[in-house]
Amino acid sequence: MSTDQLVSALTDIYHAHTLLIHSILAVLSGYIVFGMGWFTRSDYQPKGRHCYVTGGTQGLGKALAESLVRQGAHVTVVARDVVKGEKTLADLKAIAQPHQIIQFLSADLTDAKSSQEALVKASEPFDGKCPDYLYLCAGFSRPKYMMDSSLEEFKAGFDGVYWVSAYTAQAAVKTMIRQRRTGRIVFVSSFLGYTSFAGYTNYSPGKYALRGLSDSLRSEMLIHGIKIHIFMPCGIAGPGHDAENAEKPAITFKIEENDTAIQPAESAKALERGLRKGYYSITDNIVADFARLRSDGGVPGNNFFADLFYLIISSYGFPIWRMTADRDVRNGRQAVLDDYEARGVYDTPKSK
Amino acid sequence: MSTDQLVSALTDIYHAHTLLIHSILAVLSGYIVFGMGWFTRSDYQPKGRHCYVTGGTQGLGKALAESLVRQGAHVTVVARDVVKGEKTLADLKAIAQPHQIIQFLSADLTDAKSSQEALVKASEPFDGKCPDYLYLCAGFSRPKYMMDSSLEEFKAGFDGVYWVSAYTAQAAVKTMIRQRRTGRIVFVSSFLGYTSFAGYTNYSPGKYALRGLSDSLRSEMLIHGIKIHIFMPCGIAGPGHDAENAEKPAITFKIEENDTAIQPAESAKALERGLRKGYYSITDNIVADFARLRSDGGVPGNNFFADLFYLIISSYGFPIWRMTADRDVRNGRQAVLDDYEARGVYDTPKSK
Repeated sequence: MSTDQLVSALTDIYHAHTLLIHSILAVLSGYIVFGMGWFTRSDYQPKGRHCYVTGGTQGLGKALAESLVRQGAHVTVVARDVVKGEKTLADLKAIAQPHQIIQFLSADLTDAKSSQEALVKASEPFDGKCPDYLYLCAGFSRPKYMMDSSLEEFKAGFDGVYWVSAYTAQAAVKTMIRQRRTGRIVFVSSFLGYTSFAGYTNYSPGKYALRGLSDSLRSEMLIHGIKIHIFMPCGIAGPGHDAENAEKPAITFKIEENDTAIQPAESAKALERGLRKGYYSITDNIVADFARLRSDGGVPGNNFFADLFYLIISSYGFPIWRMTADRDVRNGRQAVLDDYEARGVYDTPKSK
Repeated sequence: MSTDQLVSALTDIYHAHTLLIHSILAVLSGYIVFGMGWFTRSDYQPKGRHCYVTGGTQGLGKALAESLVRQGAHVTVVARDVVKGEKTLADLKAIAQPHQIIQFLSADLTDAKSSQEALVKASEPFDGKCPDYLYLCAGFSRPKYMMDSSLEEFKAGFDGVYWVSAYTAQAAVKTMIRQRRTGRIVFVSSFLGYTSFAGYTNYSPGKYALRGLSDSLRSEMLIHGIKIHIFMPCGIAGPGHDAENAEKPAITFKIEENDTAIQPAESAKALERGLRKGYYSITDNIVADFARLRSDGGVPGNNFFADLFYLIISSYGFPIWRMTADRDVRNGRQAVLDDYEARGVYDTPKSK
């Protein structure tokens, strides 16, 4: 290589580096100029407000309800199970001041009419006014391979994640607007609403769909001053998580083996911290923040420096994580095929 | 400032730049080592295969069906409208060779049972074998503010985007596995399955949900050798697009005013180009590629250099785009509120 060629190559490298630095600076200035997170302010204040918590008799929902009662909110908890509901009602009343209104309503929120009726009933002690803050925590997860899911399980898995929140959200938005009121709606999606893998065809579609609804509503509700948030927790310990793990397919289990479920109270704390900071997408775990920056479709960011860090790390790490998950699927493949063979899933015998 | 301080500051800047360069190099090497796109190979070859195209009587689906027939595939088109179906059948037969099997089936694919039955019926001329390639193009869009959507519209909008494809996908996956066959399933989501804004609460949840289903299935079907793809087109010209624009809310229209719909044949070409390249996420427009890199949840990338470019650009541009969309919503706000006032949407008169 001649000296000229070497100089030319070095110049090219220098230019490339300069271009990269400039790109990074452009990203930085874009974030700074448009004030990602720096200028967000929040008037999140549950005290004296009517808070409506779906799925509030266990896990995240119950922890959140307790926190809201402690902060002086009026709290309505909605869930299907009456026994757990009465227990929750007693627990919440035990920590409430006498003037706080605490209610439990039993309703099947996967039904549109029941969802609307529960909202109306919850509003009765408040002169028919719509609750101020809605936390849509209801939902469940039963991972299963699609091949092993009946049509009913495939459908019910979806309804129990998406419609269980979407019906209430639509009813609340319409009521708030008609009553010229504002408020907040907090959707609860999941890390598995950012990305997905084997075992979650019953679950991730609903969690992604909640993000689609929330992203659209966040924009649309700028018209009416109603604030929309979405919580993207990782695994939360409790009966829901135990039930999920009891039936989890082997490959799904393997992919998640290093994940640790956090306590509901801790997750609820992360959610309220995000609400106080005025974040749109809220996480309870740095892993979800990595996923967020490669998955959020450009919704408002949180902290400018942290987000840049997450973006750089996740650009590097996310594809690698995904490839290790793919490897786990390939490694677990033969066991699944052998199991299907043993169970006679196939129409024809194995060809030799 | 002393010389020491200056040197120290410059050293810090130098270190920061070095760190940035190394981060970028780490990203590059991560992509290279794990072969993002460089090692993907594809055996996409419609010739002689049975291709099943839902929504195949107009727009993207019809353009795709024509292309597949021209390539020598056997093609089954499924859609509800019999008149359009017969017309499509005649059009396709006119360009087919005599040995090619061309079928039209009328079915309501938002119904699970009809979806299953259509798949079985399509398989009859093929000794009951499941189609090889499925292109799930059926779907519709009727943007509307949530306040103006009835419960039925909210529900139907979702079903007509998600279940219209998900039922067929489940039936096909189960049939392929039982028959020890492999094949391809191509979901059709949308740019609005990556990100969303005002007017799309009926639509984006379904398009996001398709991505959730596809992301999970892509991983899970590594077990069975069934290939999953997802197409993320921008606006496609045709009757669907015209019907959508006829009712589009003013703010939604404003946000999209610079978008131009491409011709169905062009979109179909982009889809097949992606399939031949073995891409998982396929786009028909660079704007969707920008969105992809900030929204795809770390699914397999396409081209390493292009993806890096998209990521850098979209990190800068996507938040800015989103903020201009938010500004459009705020600018259109008063007109919506005045309209609601005039239509008597509110429970109580305006307070002075």
